Amino acid sequence: MPDPSGPDRPFDVGLLDPLGHGSRAAELTGDSAWLQAMVDAELALTRALVAAGLAPEWMGAVCDDLADAGRLDLAAIAAEGQGGGNPVIPLVKHLAAAAETLRTGASDHLHVGATSQDILDTAAMLVAHRVTGEVSARLGDYAATLAGLAGAHRGTAMAGRTLGQQASPTSFGFVVAGWLDMALTAIETIDRLRARLPVQLGGAVGNLAVLHQIATLRGTGGDPAHTVDLVLRRFASGLGLAAPSIAWHTNRLPVVDLAAGLAAATGAVGAFALDVTVLARTEIAEVGEHLGQGQGGSSAMPHKRNPVTAVLITAAARQAPGLVATLFGSLLAEDQRPSGAWHAEWPALRGLERLTLSAVAGAAALAGRLDVDPERMLANLEITDGLVCSERVTTLLAEALGKTAAFALVQRASAEAVRTNRPLRVVLSGLLSADGHDEQLRAGVWAAFDLDPGQDGPGIDRVLDRFRLAAVAVNSHGLGTAAAPGSIDAVRTPAP
Amino acid sequence: MPDPSGPDRPFDVGLLDPLGHGSRAAELTGDSAWLQAMVDAELALTRALVAAGLAPEWMGAVCDDLADAGRLDLAAIAAEGQGGGNPVIPLVKHLAAAAETLRTGASDHLHVGATSQDILDTAAMLVAHRVTGEVSARLGDYAATLAGLAGAHRGTAMAGRTLGQQASPTSFGFVVAGWLDMALTAIETIDRLRARLPVQLGGAVGNLAVLHQIATLRGTGGDPAHTVDLVLRRFASGLGLAAPSIAWHTNRLPVVDLAAGLAAATGAVGAFALDVTVLARTEIAEVGEHLGQGQGGSSAMPHKRNPVTAVLITAAARQAPGLVATLFGSLLAEDQRPSGAWHAEWPALRGLERLTLSAVAGAAALAGRLDVDPERMLANLEITDGLVCSERVTTLLAEALGKTAAFALVQRASAEAVRTNRPLRVVLSGLLSADGHDEQLRAGVWAAFDLDPGQDGPGIDRVLDRFRLAAVAVNSHGLGTAAAPGSIDAVRTPAP
Amino acid sequence: MPDPSGPDRPFDVGLLDPLGHGSRAAELTGDSAWLQAMVDAELALTRALVAAGLAPEWMGAVCDDLADAGRLDLAAIAAEGQGGGNPVIPLVKHLAAAAETLRTGASDHLHVGATSQDILDTAAMLVAHRVTGEVSARLGDYAATLAGLAGAHRGTAMAGRTLGQQASPTSFGFVVAGWLDMALTAIETIDRLRARLPVQLGGAVGNLAVLHQIATLRGTGGDPAHTVDLVLRRFASGLGLAAPSIAWHTNRLPVVDLAAGLAAATGAVGAFALDVTVLARTEIAEVGEHLGQGQGGSSAMPHKRNPVTAVLITAAARQAPGLVATLFGSLLAEDQRPSGAWHAEWPALRGLERLTLSAVAGAAALAGRLDVDPERMLANLEITDGLVCSERVTTLLAEALGKTAAFALVQRASAEAVRTNRPLRVVLSGLLSADGHDEQLRAGVWAAFDLDPGQDGPGIDRVLDRFRLAAVAVNSHGLGTAAAPGSIDAVRTPAP
Amino acid sequence: MPDPSGPDRPFDVGLLDPLGHGSRAAELTGDSAWLQAMVDAELALTRALVAAGLAPEWMGAVCDDLADAGRLDLAAIAAEGQGGGNPVIPLVKHLAAAAETLRTGASDHLHVGATSQDILDTAAMLVAHRVTGEVSARLGDYAATLAGLAGAHRGTAMAGRTLGQQASPTSFGFVVAGWLDMALTAIETIDRLRARLPVQLGGAVGNLAVLHQIATLRGTGGDPAHTVDLVLRRFASGLGLAAPSIAWHTNRLPVVDLAAGLAAATGAVGAFALDVTVLARTEIAEVGEHLGQGQGGSSAMPHKRNPVTAVLITAAARQAPGLVATLFGSLLAEDQRPSGAWHAEWPALRGLERLTLSAVAGAAALAGRLDVDPERMLANLEITDGLVCSERVTTLLAEALGKTAAFALVQRASAEAVRTNRPLRVVLSGLLSADGHDEQLRAGVWAAFDLDPGQDGPGIDRVLDRFRLAAVAVNSHGLGTAAAPGSIDAVRTPAP
Repeated sequence: MPDPSGPDRPFDVGLLDPLGHGSRAAELTGDSAWLQAMVDAELALTRALVAAGLAPEWMGAVCDDLADAGRLDLAAIAAEGQGGGNPVIPLVKHLAAAAETLRTGASDHLHVGATSQDILDTAAMLVAHRVTGEVSARLGDYAATLAGLAGAHRGTAMAGRTLGQQASPTSFGFVVAGWLDMALTAIETIDRLRARLPVQLGGAVGNLAVLHQIATLRGTGGDPAHTVDLVLRRFASGLGLAAPSIAWHTNRLPVVDLAAGLAAATGAVGAFALDVTVLARTEIAEVGEHLGQGQGGSSAMPHKRNPVTAVLITAAARQAPGLVATLFGSLLAEDQRPSGAWHAEWPALRGLERLTLSAVAGAAALAGRLDVDPERMLANLEITDGLVCSERVTTLLAEALGKTAAFALVQRASAEAVRTNRPLRVVLSGLLSADGHDEQLRAGVWAAFDLDPGQDGPGIDRVLDRFRLAAVAVNSHGLGTAAAPGSIDAVRTPAP
Repeated sequence: MPDPSGPDRPFDVGLLDPLGHGSRAAELTGDSAWLQAMVDAELALTRALVAAGLAPEWMGAVCDDLADAGRLDLAAIAAEGQGGGNPVIPLVKHLAAAAETLRTGASDHLHVGATSQDILDTAAMLVAHRVTGEVSARLGDYAATLAGLAGAHRGTAMAGRTLGQQASPTSFGFVVAGWLDMALTAIETIDRLRARLPVQLGGAVGNLAVLHQIATLRGTGGDPAHTVDLVLRRFASGLGLAAPSIAWHTNRLPVVDLAAGLAAATGAVGAFALDVTVLARTEIAEVGEHLGQGQGGSSAMPHKRNPVTAVLITAAARQAPGLVATLFGSLLAEDQRPSGAWHAEWPALRGLERLTLSAVAGAAALAGRLDVDPERMLANLEITDGLVCSERVTTLLAEALGKTAAFALVQRASAEAVRTNRPLRVVLSGLLSADGHDEQLRAGVWAAFDLDPGQDGPGIDRVLDRFRLAAVAVNSHGLGTAAAPGSIDAVRTPAP
Repeated sequence: MPDPSGPDRPFDVGLLDPLGHGSRAAELTGDSAWLQAMVDAELALTRALVAAGLAPEWMGAVCDDLADAGRLDLAAIAAEGQGGGNPVIPLVKHLAAAAETLRTGASDHLHVGATSQDILDTAAMLVAHRVTGEVSARLGDYAATLAGLAGAHRGTAMAGRTLGQQASPTSFGFVVAGWLDMALTAIETIDRLRARLPVQLGGAVGNLAVLHQIATLRGTGGDPAHTVDLVLRRFASGLGLAAPSIAWHTNRLPVVDLAAGLAAATGAVGAFALDVTVLARTEIAEVGEHLGQGQGGSSAMPHKRNPVTAVLITAAARQAPGLVATLFGSLLAEDQRPSGAWHAEWPALRGLERLTLSAVAGAAALAGRLDVDPERMLANLEITDGLVCSERVTTLLAEALGKTAAFALVQRASAEAVRTNRPLRVVLSGLLSADGHDEQLRAGVWAAFDLDPGQDGPGIDRVLDRFRLAAVAVNSHGLGTAAAPGSIDAVRTPAP
Repeated sequence: MPDPSGPDRPFDVGLLDPLGHGSRAAELTGDSAWLQAMVDAELALTRALVAAGLAPEWMGAVCDDLADAGRLDLAAIAAEGQGGGNPVIPLVKHLAAAAETLRTGASDHLHVGATSQDILDTAAMLVAHRVTGEVSARLGDYAATLAGLAGAHRGTAMAGRTLGQQASPTSFGFVVAGWLDMALTAIETIDRLRARLPVQLGGAVGNLAVLHQIATLRGTGGDPAHTVDLVLRRFASGLGLAAPSIAWHTNRLPVVDLAAGLAAATGAVGAFALDVTVLARTEIAEVGEHLGQGQGGSSAMPHKRNPVTAVLITAAARQAPGLVATLFGSLLAEDQRPSGAWHAEWPALRGLERLTLSAVAGAAALAGRLDVDPERMLANLEITDGLVCSERVTTLLAEALGKTAAFALVQRASAEAVRTNRPLRVVLSGLLSADGHDEQLRAGVWAAFDLDPGQDGPGIDRVLDRFRLAAVAVNSHGLGTAAAPGSIDAVRTPAP
């Protein structure tokens, strides 16, 4: 095994992946994790054979002794994988050799009825099961933090922006509720697909012919189909995965379902991070990334305080779609095992898992260290001298003037306000007066420029209710350790 | 309106889309369909206002009279959309003018509380609702045809192929069952997401501020939040769509969920079509596309019988992933309406819908006119002189010799069979004899070269059971008109 | 031919493509344009046969009479294309029928030696040739406008921003020079690939067998290979395209080269448009899109002035990469004509051409109506109270203190300036004084906070020199009609 | 530094990348290679400062001593990169510390005037320069092998196939010439872009402000712009890269140009590999991958001889488009350094380089061990009983009957031949006789079914001429060590 710190170290230690450090991406998706998952798959199959009476009872103990993939020569298996085009062929050899040292004849009961793809696909789903558990948990942490922010900032007025322009007032709490709603949908998606990740078992061409043959040869007289079915179900339950109705060697819908879910999670936090980079702009400065020692610096500008986590999450989210495309492309898989489509999935799926893991971990951290500046939000709302309230004012005027006339009037007033550099409120009041409208209407219009983020409450509450329901329903891995009941109840407490 | 058959006709009439002809793609996703969906959305909103007491009862009749978008000037609306960057702004103007001709003041009750994106997103979901209904129905037809084929060909032996090489025997029925299983999953996905397609309603910055304001101004004393909620629910139920917990102007998970489902459907039939192109190869010729007059021809080669529908479906499936990537890319949507991400969705989503519609319609047709050649399948199974049975023979030998020794023996025999151009059965028998194995083992091995597709039955049955369950559960749009109960029961009838 | 304004009008008239209106996208890439290009290709082949002595001289006049594709029944050809999977097969029939009405036997000399793909690929390259000519011309207009802006604003100080944060001063002229440099590279790329767009000619399997056979049968005794070569060269020169060394039916590098060039052009203007959306943000407001009547409005907010062209260009640029991926995916083309890869190219290539055409036309227009606000640029530079000058000040201090000490000092001063809300200049002066540094250093540091965009001049000039060189070298289609010599010379004139 | 063979080894050693083993992908693109390239960039900048008189002469020796990046703590730099979001910030610290141990004050002359992106982009281009050199060399090897094959098999008749169907005869030499032509274009593209890979140098916001300032402060009286220009040119020439006209921090055309070239190379060999997987199909078996010990095996089927290298190259080619899309997406880079677009490039570019390196190395190897079976090619040509010759026969008949009548006649004969299972030659002869055609025509038609691959010669020769021209022009890295002059001259020697 080459030393990665030696002069000819070819391995990546994360030099180009600053966001990955500190996430569990490498641990959950590295070659060691994959090798372990392949070993888990092989041994679960053998245990299923034992359970179905197709392998001797003593193989259970052999499986126990073989369980730690760390004892296998990972580098050798990787190198030997070149010949057959996948790592399962050498793995079976190494595992068989290890089994034989434990008990002669033990290797006869490994990899029985399986083809390489059965093991590699099952390992991929095992890795995915672990990855999606972590993704769900980190999204849960993230959601819990957002729930707190949404409740605390329900009264924090802020400019809503569309196409980069200030549009109408909203509240920071409502904006956070939008992020939270997206996170809750992403968690639902991840949890749903996680519960359906299937084992793969079909043998050479998917029809379980060898297991059927063995069940006939070794079976105790029952229906071989029943025995095969038992093996499949025990294989699946032993790994905590689902049993498919039929092999999916060339039915890659489980893979694209997983890919779409991971990319949805990455995109959900990516949208949040992108918003942070916008709101942290020097000229907006409503939200910042609280930076610790050594964070956010620049090699050229001593004053720089870059929202670096937000930027890196955004970067991760920009990479996901291309990998998703590769995986959807592999739906075009011919024959009973395709000539390239399957092999193309491995790095794309792993890459996507890594991006997602680091993005959601980053988002959970980032949400926890947002610097929110309500004063700056209020100050920015005043930049347009009232234009940002045009929709609200138009609505009020429409009650008196009709919708079309009101819209035209405010449009005219807005143009004049910009041209003359006066507050819209003042211009509008003058126009109404000139048009002979009564004092009551003018007073109402004048008052309509006062901010009232109270309207955002119902929307925030709907999302917080959704969060609470999800948190109650959640099992151990979900909705984050940060979401203690106390903090959940606290989210409706208004900000001081 | 320019004449598309005139000298300066700029419109596409399908010259580069041979698969689209005959599908309902143009009808369901064309500009007219979109305009109608936008009008449907506008009017559903007005009706919801009426129901909530925020608009006068007489607007119901006005809505009835405005319902046909065919009366609007589509081309003018399209051209005027350039100024604001979307077609809703001119649509509102045209619709308002039409309303005023019906009753003065009617336009005051159109587009109330809505922003352009509310209407366009809702229209997109309406179009998607119609599209996914059609996709589900065509997939249902396709599945029903496959179910018939799977049952009829459960005894049709065929070479299973992996990495392009004959691997082990399977049956054509089992291969079809694999296509069917994929179709059933795709239908489930489409139906699941179809039931969740949401309306969009948020107003300028998503917080329903105007509706809240109007409910306060015009409401009859109840909680304005309750009134707004009623509008949202009536808006959704009026259109047959779901009501979201909060506006999703920049939460594009509904769009990527839809995109992933459409691409999954396209990929599911694409995998089938790709298999057809392979099995139709001149040298394989196990399956052909039954060609009618004028189909499958060539401009250069009078004898050509190209599997043209299969090729075009495959082509459609190759285009989907790129569009999926674009749509996942639009998850990165900043502010309360993004500066480009949203606009980028429109053509990509429409393109994906068109590909899917034409691909599933094509697949339903193709499945119904497959020429299956069981004799050729059997003949191809004999090409390898027994090598294709190596897995089965090894399994049998492993009972006597152990797995490793059996594998090595058959590997050696295979190499010798290839080198000496003799049947594997003969070579193996000789080797066993030379090694002193008894007659019983040799006889068993000899018999193991006889094909027995019976092993495939349980897998086929599992998928057919799944099909029957889905067909029973289905509503009017699903699992196709071709799936009459009689034909479903008939699927287990063996082929003559 | 259905009436597109009728009740069942299925054709797209641009409802979802606001940017396309006014560009030449529909005209250059519509079905009519493609049909004309196919006819052009067929007739050029026939004329080449005449030139090589393989068809009678009188076919020249027949070709003249057949030249206008507008006389063919486009809709019928499109519909009949379904059978064979491409429109060339029916085109040949329709063209042959038209030829026979002109002179009996004329159809014998059409489509000789060609396969469908020869005609469709050649037509695609012809369309591409026209498209890239337009793209280059519009990019030239865009570049000429930018050249004027770069020269006029060489002295307009502006904050340079990195990761969304103000970083160091730059000038608007320099920023424009960056856009211009990108445009010039894109023009080079487009012009380079445009000059190399090849005809396709290979016959059924690419080896020109039929032409070789005909040259042998009809030739006047010379080397048939020479005659075939002459046909190929005349075919190419007749269309203004390049002659390839060999057929490229499954060598799709010309297509991806084209795709990459188009996407590069779209991205080049997309980066500009994205910058405009950022600089037009309400809180930055340094650059705006000058809006005419009916532009930039909103359906909900009467005051809105959206940078709508910039947004739509950005949207176009977001769609290009997915289409590029589809086209690169079609490099995987098997056999002598592939089963799907080729067919998948058509809509992706057309879609990409349309995006590019509308994006570059939009950019040329947008560049011409930028509202630039130098005062606001200066005001924004003062937001950070001097932090934006930290790099410059550090550089000066490094001369006295060394680089590391200077960086640390300015970093400390920056933090203190933020914490105490004082100008960096003041804080730094105090720290220098406290550390006992002499008055001269402090005066130098104080002066270093004064802006001096003069440093940007050389960079701007290098790009303007590049522009002038390109403009001189340009032919009729390049570097735009807007780039009159006068305006080019004027670009170095400083702004008042 | 963790031990990659230890229990918690998180690093990838190639378990999921069987094709990468044996290629130089890891060596050229690993973290160590990147760190070295970053150090190379930093030191080249310092040396350029020395050359321009902006740093002391003695820094040259310091640079010599710092040149080996192997002495730096890669893992620490990788981990510390998290704070600032890129590895350059910690690299500068580590490098500065090392410099100070060599000579006090030396660190003052490192990273002068540069920003992180200058170093990272320049390092990326250096890595790309090395990668493209290797890619060009391996493509050269591949091309040389193909040139030999094309010459040797110019007389090897083979069925040309379109849409999976036998279409017309061609020769294996011609098919190889098609692969070769594609390779030569890919080499041209790679070499062209390789010669233009630019250094990056702009400082914080791209305008070289600091260098300009330093040149003013430290310069010897000349024009500072001239001095800065000198630094830029020396920086570039010291690294063997090009000097750009202006910084390209947000002009990412150089990156997409590189990406498109790499993907073109991958696709070029991918098309070849895909053809090999098709031609190696059990039922076609015209070409095989010569397998060594331990290659091409299966874990389930002892007889399997999978074309594993071809499959893995195809898999690599399927992954490239998604990464290309990501990189084109990063053209949308805002400000003077973007908030995510730049960071998203790093893994995508590295991933693409690795795919390309392993794909071209794999293709060079695969081309060198193709098993070609001319007898099988001939046998497959006879499968259709003459249908494959229909185009040629039609051409001949057209001379007598006219094109339309000839096409219809052969189409009718083809259908009858299929229906009656008789050779087309026989059926056609009968039809001609029945129609009263003379003996001469029938004899000519009969003879036209004899194969004559001689027609392919000119096409093969054009490509071989192109190869020879390229080989003559080539420098040390190009067109492979396998392409000795002798072998080039030998390629026209016909096969025995």
